[in-house]
Amino acid sequence: MNTQLKCKKAEIQDLHKIIELLADDELGRKRERLEDPLPESYIKAFNAIQGDPNNELILAVLAEEIVGVLQITFTPYLTYQGGWRATIEGVRTNKFLRGKGIGTQMIEWAIHLAKERGAHVVQLTTDKQRPEALEFYKRLGFRASHEGLKLHLG
Amino acid sequence: MNTQLKCKKAEIQDLHKIIELLADDELGRKRERLEDPLPESYIKAFNAIQGDPNNELILAVLAEEIVGVLQITFTPYLTYQGGWRATIEGVRTNKFLRGKGIGTQMIEWAIHLAKERGAHVVQLTTDKQRPEALEFYKRLGFRASHEGLKLHLG
Repeated sequence: MNTQLKCKKAEIQDLHKIIELLADDELGRKRERLEDPLPESYIKAFNAIQGDPNNELILAVLAEEIVGVLQITFTPYLTYQGGWRATIEGVRTNKFLRGKGIGTQMIEWAIHLAKERGAHVVQLTTDKQRPEALEFYKRLGFRASHEGLKLHLG
Repeated sequence: MNTQLKCKKAEIQDLHKIIELLADDELGRKRERLEDPLPESYIKAFNAIQGDPNNELILAVLAEEIVGVLQITFTPYLTYQGGWRATIEGVRTNKFLRGKGIGTQMIEWAIHLAKERGAHVVQLTTDKQRPEALEFYKRLGFRASHEGLKLHLG
């Protein structure tokens, strides 16, 4: 058994396990629908992500098990002299494996990908209801310099 | 003279005026390079934005003058049952025309585009050094539910 943590890009056969991770979360359980088969909307979104060269789903794999997921998006902007940014979203790790460095390794991989793509900044927002996540990102060198605002559409 | 404010999508001939707006800003003046001709990096970024169906540059035009700019990005995510999000970035208005509803009209147009694209949320981050911007977005219905974190890459 391979007990070394690895990162890999997601494939369609990983989708059910990814939605399990997203649903097995304090905020996620109210938002997601973990059914078999999965609601079509997840498959459509997965295909849209995979078909876009500016979006990647990154998985953490331990002993052949998917134990973490995040999405990274690369966006060209005019600001910062036409700089690209990398945005991280939807970070989740298996809740029984917290504190084992899985999140850290995924974020480090995301930072590596962002550098490869020439992004000048890696950015993310974290819900104020997750104070432990805020501390986690600060330890990794992120600065909470911005307010993150949302407007939910009806 | 047409003194009614209009929104339109940016074209390459608008680029110099857009960079003028981005540079004529407390934070922007340290970051941008307003030169004639413009640094190549702006033109490359403009072309990358225009070539991506998930990115739009929106301008506010008053009496044939460009008086505001923002960028909107549409991103597919697995979270929220595979929901799309609209992200607003790089919002600037002519500083001599503050309080005239230009920003409001641009954000309303962005919300309209987000609804057309079926996004479930419109999101943005605003620098904590711009408290007046935070109040502006709150008045438009945005909730500051998240922390916005940045990691600048060397």
